[in-house]
Amino acid sequence: METNIRSASRIRNLACSSCGQQYSSFELQKLSGCCAMPLVSEYDLSEPLSKEILAKREGTMWRYRELLPVLSKSNIVSLGEGFTPILELNNLAAKYELSSLVLKDEGQNPTGSFKARGLSMAISKAKEFGVTGCIIPTAGNAGVAMAAYCARAGMKAVVVMPRHTPAAFKEECYWYGAEVHLIDGLINDCAAKVQELNADGGLLDVSTLKEPYRLEGKKTMGYEIAEQLNWSLPDVILYPAGGGTGLIGIWKAFQELKALGWLASDIKLPRMVAVQAENCRPLIDTYTGKQANAKQYVGKPTIANGLAVPRPIGENMMLRVIQESEGTVMGITEAEMLEGMRELGHREGLFVAPEGAAVWMAARKLITSGWLSPSESILLLNTGSGQKYLENVTGQAGIR
Amino acid sequence: METNIRSASRIRNLACSSCGQQYSSFELQKLSGCCAMPLVSEYDLSEPLSKEILAKREGTMWRYRELLPVLSKSNIVSLGEGFTPILELNNLAAKYELSSLVLKDEGQNPTGSFKARGLSMAISKAKEFGVTGCIIPTAGNAGVAMAAYCARAGMKAVVVMPRHTPAAFKEECYWYGAEVHLIDGLINDCAAKVQELNADGGLLDVSTLKEPYRLEGKKTMGYEIAEQLNWSLPDVILYPAGGGTGLIGIWKAFQELKALGWLASDIKLPRMVAVQAENCRPLIDTYTGKQANAKQYVGKPTIANGLAVPRPIGENMMLRVIQESEGTVMGITEAEMLEGMRELGHREGLFVAPEGAAVWMAARKLITSGWLSPSESILLLNTGSGQKYLENVTGQAGIR
Repeated sequence: METNIRSASRIRNLACSSCGQQYSSFELQKLSGCCAMPLVSEYDLSEPLSKEILAKREGTMWRYRELLPVLSKSNIVSLGEGFTPILELNNLAAKYELSSLVLKDEGQNPTGSFKARGLSMAISKAKEFGVTGCIIPTAGNAGVAMAAYCARAGMKAVVVMPRHTPAAFKEECYWYGAEVHLIDGLINDCAAKVQELNADGGLLDVSTLKEPYRLEGKKTMGYEIAEQLNWSLPDVILYPAGGGTGLIGIWKAFQELKALGWLASDIKLPRMVAVQAENCRPLIDTYTGKQANAKQYVGKPTIANGLAVPRPIGENMMLRVIQESEGTVMGITEAEMLEGMRELGHREGLFVAPEGAAVWMAARKLITSGWLSPSESILLLNTGSGQKYLENVTGQAGIR
Repeated sequence: METNIRSASRIRNLACSSCGQQYSSFELQKLSGCCAMPLVSEYDLSEPLSKEILAKREGTMWRYRELLPVLSKSNIVSLGEGFTPILELNNLAAKYELSSLVLKDEGQNPTGSFKARGLSMAISKAKEFGVTGCIIPTAGNAGVAMAAYCARAGMKAVVVMPRHTPAAFKEECYWYGAEVHLIDGLINDCAAKVQELNADGGLLDVSTLKEPYRLEGKKTMGYEIAEQLNWSLPDVILYPAGGGTGLIGIWKAFQELKALGWLASDIKLPRMVAVQAENCRPLIDTYTGKQANAKQYVGKPTIANGLAVPRPIGENMMLRVIQESEGTVMGITEAEMLEGMRELGHREGLFVAPEGAAVWMAARKLITSGWLSPSESILLLNTGSGQKYLENVTGQAGIR
């Protein structure tokens, strides 16, 4: 009925993230044909668009529909994702004598994590292209999200995750009717299994950055940060970087908002900090010159399942964001994550994923080292609720 | 710093829900002194207030601050609760040939359930009155929410819950630093333990309806239903009624919006359906004349922990809503809840609490019986995420 209602998307084309070669955004695409690297969406941002359009829009990421790739409203597969709150952490700010400390709480998304954004977008585009089934290698949250959106879209869902992933992730996938495969290893081993299971290409592989549109969902975090802070930006954003789509997406969003004139052309953009687990720190080892790149990096499991990504395909894109923004990298131990979870829980009433605790601990360490000044405004990105990680952290809360 | 910024609340007084006697809303109150029954907040709704104030307000329940009881903004203890999405269930509507089926997803609240609304409000008011610690008997979600908001407010938190409550509820309380007591029995047995633990009255007892303000948080679900449906209302709302604060609150909200002129004075209000578990159906037994009231009702545990409330203090208030709205009651078995969870998961990508599944199954049964017509617009209220209930339902998803 609504099939032909256009969403007013201003998408123009895709481009190879490595060499810039253009590709059609009106056909199903995967990695670039030229460099076998991620494709990024480009929009027509020159025609004026007033911020005022947002005033009466829905409280989801779809409020930015002109800047998103879905062409027809009828293809949007939504569970109400996005427009999560930015919370002031005044208790911790007082304890550590910080001027301004806030946290964007992505745990309040459908399926309990920021992965809802990327998968809502990818599955919506898959629907638009007539796809009937999807497959994904996942550390947990992305698989849950894909299973949920596939169920809603009426598509087949195949999820491949490490065997050691907490049961809560697996069980939720079952409730969405997904087919789940458990692999001995980390997400790169799952990716190999995906190749094997999908040898005939019958399913769309929605691995991080291997299709262009999860990135477009994730970038909406950047739009929201700008809008919710009334078109100003924090001095520093700390982000837990596994696959890194969110880090890349937030930075892309800021560039787009500047091009559109929604952010002032001379605005100082935040320094972007990529936070990783000491157990799996491929980006840090490349950034600090310990290796040329992460292509052979071997990681260990971590209680922050989402950070166990040893060989991220978006490595170069992440490094570019860190360099352009004058940001940095930071590694966090398992014990530090637990300390961060306790502190955010006891002091601020937030039960965050270990990934979210890691960024808070990274802020503390960067203040101690002097890289971050207590007078700067700091935004922490918590990527998910702690609930599905309980199995990783039971008995560690510190109070009975 | 913000201590004296007024929130513009129009609260005028409290009134006994049984006899109407008025009490001050500017002093700490518990049950009414006259009848020992719940107190309800009354506002000055005669002075004009434009709906347009909402256009630029935050996407939380605090957007309605004129109609809420907190006097000073600085006392608001918030984690971003409320303004949850109303999702179209088009797949189920097609399967069952329904004209309009939507679900308000309260699982996207902080702490994963609708309890965030009531406890955010109660703890904010407790802070306003200088309270330093709170205690609660709970079936699970309310205790988690109280623990979170108390942590954020810097208050002591004591949570008393049935020993059979899934571990996820207990563990989350620990992460907020709460003191947790486990009791053999249901929530009424926990209430007795609260009396014992709090014999000296050192803590504020925030049991359902025993303080006036959880109700004011819950009523915001009614405001949001009206606003999100553009000031029209569904024909029928199905609600899982344990303590019943939400059922009472939504109905109160509709009356207030009519008095304020935000809903048309001649609008047809929804028929309100109270859904209970067959294992614990005190309201149904009173409604159908099997007992005079629920004061001696004995219930059994259910996988829908929030419905295991054998002797709700708000029974009369709930019965009044059902009668005034020309609604009804419906009991749902454990097996039916599991069927509902599977159907909402597989068909709509929603992993709901068993309570939420119960209301969907109630809709199906009321359509079969003819009480509900397929041409009517139906709103289901899902009170929480399924995540914390996994222990109750493991192995029941139907697909491996």
